[in-house]
Amino acid sequence: MKGIHGGDIYRNDVKADFSVNVNPLGIPEAVEAALYEAVEHCSQYPDISAEKLKKALSGMLNVPRENLLFGNGASELFMAIIHGIRPRKTVIPIPSFYGYEYAARAADGEIIYYETKEENDFCFQEDFFSVLTEDVDLLFLANPNNPTGNLMSRKELIKVLDHCRDKGIYVVLDECFIEFCDRECSMLQEINKYTNLILVRAFTKIFAIPGVRLGYLVCSNPLLPDEIGRQLPEWNLSGFAQAAGYECAMQATFVEKTVAYIEKEREFLEAGLKKAGCQVFPGKANFLLIYSKQPLYDKLLEKGILIRDCENFRGLSKGFYRIAVKCRKENEALLRAIGEIKWNGKVK
Amino acid sequence: MKGIHGGDIYRNDVKADFSVNVNPLGIPEAVEAALYEAVEHCSQYPDISAEKLKKALSGMLNVPRENLLFGNGASELFMAIIHGIRPRKTVIPIPSFYGYEYAARAADGEIIYYETKEENDFCFQEDFFSVLTEDVDLLFLANPNNPTGNLMSRKELIKVLDHCRDKGIYVVLDECFIEFCDRECSMLQEINKYTNLILVRAFTKIFAIPGVRLGYLVCSNPLLPDEIGRQLPEWNLSGFAQAAGYECAMQATFVEKTVAYIEKEREFLEAGLKKAGCQVFPGKANFLLIYSKQPLYDKLLEKGILIRDCENFRGLSKGFYRIAVKCRKENEALLRAIGEIKWNGKVK
Repeated sequence: MKGIHGGDIYRNDVKADFSVNVNPLGIPEAVEAALYEAVEHCSQYPDISAEKLKKALSGMLNVPRENLLFGNGASELFMAIIHGIRPRKTVIPIPSFYGYEYAARAADGEIIYYETKEENDFCFQEDFFSVLTEDVDLLFLANPNNPTGNLMSRKELIKVLDHCRDKGIYVVLDECFIEFCDRECSMLQEINKYTNLILVRAFTKIFAIPGVRLGYLVCSNPLLPDEIGRQLPEWNLSGFAQAAGYECAMQATFVEKTVAYIEKEREFLEAGLKKAGCQVFPGKANFLLIYSKQPLYDKLLEKGILIRDCENFRGLSKGFYRIAVKCRKENEALLRAIGEIKWNGKVK
Repeated sequence: MKGIHGGDIYRNDVKADFSVNVNPLGIPEAVEAALYEAVEHCSQYPDISAEKLKKALSGMLNVPRENLLFGNGASELFMAIIHGIRPRKTVIPIPSFYGYEYAARAADGEIIYYETKEENDFCFQEDFFSVLTEDVDLLFLANPNNPTGNLMSRKELIKVLDHCRDKGIYVVLDECFIEFCDRECSMLQEINKYTNLILVRAFTKIFAIPGVRLGYLVCSNPLLPDEIGRQLPEWNLSGFAQAAGYECAMQATFVEKTVAYIEKEREFLEAGLKKAGCQVFPGKANFLLIYSKQPLYDKLLEKGILIRDCENFRGLSKGFYRIAVKCRKENEALLRAIGEIKWNGKVK
């Protein structure tokens, strides 16, 4: 069964999961220790204001506390943003994460899809700006984008932000994967310059804790956190999320190590996939979008390897797959498995 | 600092917390073990459909799976209900849990407060029905009610449900504390009879896991779970919530033991509080609403005991406090501490 998301190890027999994009280096030790300790405290209500976590993150990001909001995963924040702003018209570039569409559908507004094209490596073209008109209230944008892995430069992003500010469009900039990339492309430092910018990140991917649920948003608009904040249920952060998040905020070295590791392994995987006959799109994240004429999903699943079939992504079609960058041994096993499929095919 | 909720052990120096209403027997062993085990799996995404948990709860409640929805705590469900139904007019009886008002304020509808009176022990009177008119879309109702502990009988509830069905009013029946009481008063068995009934419960209180965040709703209206479900963020349940919830669904004996224990301790506490000069309202839950002319909050906090000052409850005033029923030793310590305050007062 293919779901709308990757990671469905619950309805598939999976030995290696290349369908989800979490850090292959796993959970930092201190974060895991904090989770074990949190079990001891789970008879207590978590702190409704998450003060300790907020202070730590504020320090890590060098952002005032009042510009921060936490969510039970980025998914919760996307939905709270939609209910807080109630956009009449939302622009979603495609292909991209299904969660933007899911959140936008929770309210009544119209959704406009801007389709990027394969022949442009799914990059924005000048016609993108013609979609961003004054009647648009909100734009979802991801950097790097999922599933393409495209990383927009500072210059490109600032052009979009300037345009949107002029047109009165809020920009929800999803940076859930930015910490795997060149973080120079983050717009965190621009947060004070753009009151129309709502930056969303998660601890889920970079710290390999999707089971915990923790995301945050940064926004300098003094009205917005209130408007969005009152759409977040009280006690939305579990004791586990608060304890883990606090430790995550101390892991600068781990993040640096990850960036270097991912770059090396992504290049290794990219070369191997090309050699195996796949078309690889020029992604800069901890995953790669590929195209293969040879059907890969079922054949790999037979071997216990789950990849993300991207056929059901709006804007993509049969033959597109997303593959996570994992550790060398696993990446080698994947390439070997793909090689075997082809070889079997030729023999038949 | 007194918050809008109890349990603020983060901004107070607390040795014994009587301000939150969780099971004094603590977490069942198997649930705690499941939480420790969940740490090992938190690098995996939790099951987006929570299938294992849903199957277990469906069995425990004897309710079809399609009538169940899970939330990151009952708070998330209240907000999803509001966004799913978008009531133009909502009735909230007071005094009651602040969370209903918080959820209702997330949308634009009007809120009507029905005030129950001290002279009636905060019970509904006939005039309650005159508030429930055809232009009302939604009623929040809690059984037992918090902070009064009032438990409505089956007969009373059915009268309200019948009336609301006739007037086209959805009833959100909060049964978060019903498992501490005589569960004969639960409306779970009536769920098929009333398509206007949305029953909400939590694992938080009865299994002493407020740090985990897990609630659920039961509703037989085939349209409602879809309408409400799409207001819930994807992956709203952490791996911890799913693992703990599954084990909670196996704990029938623990719940029975709790009911007997609470009844005995509530009677002990009630007698002691009356003896100490407090007015005790006739609650049937795992907490008691009391009135004391002698100010208790600060004096007890000086001794490291936190109780819930109910002055900021809509419909209550200075002198009302809510006190959780805890274990015998703690209950004795509380009574002793209250006794000491009075004695000190006289000496001065």
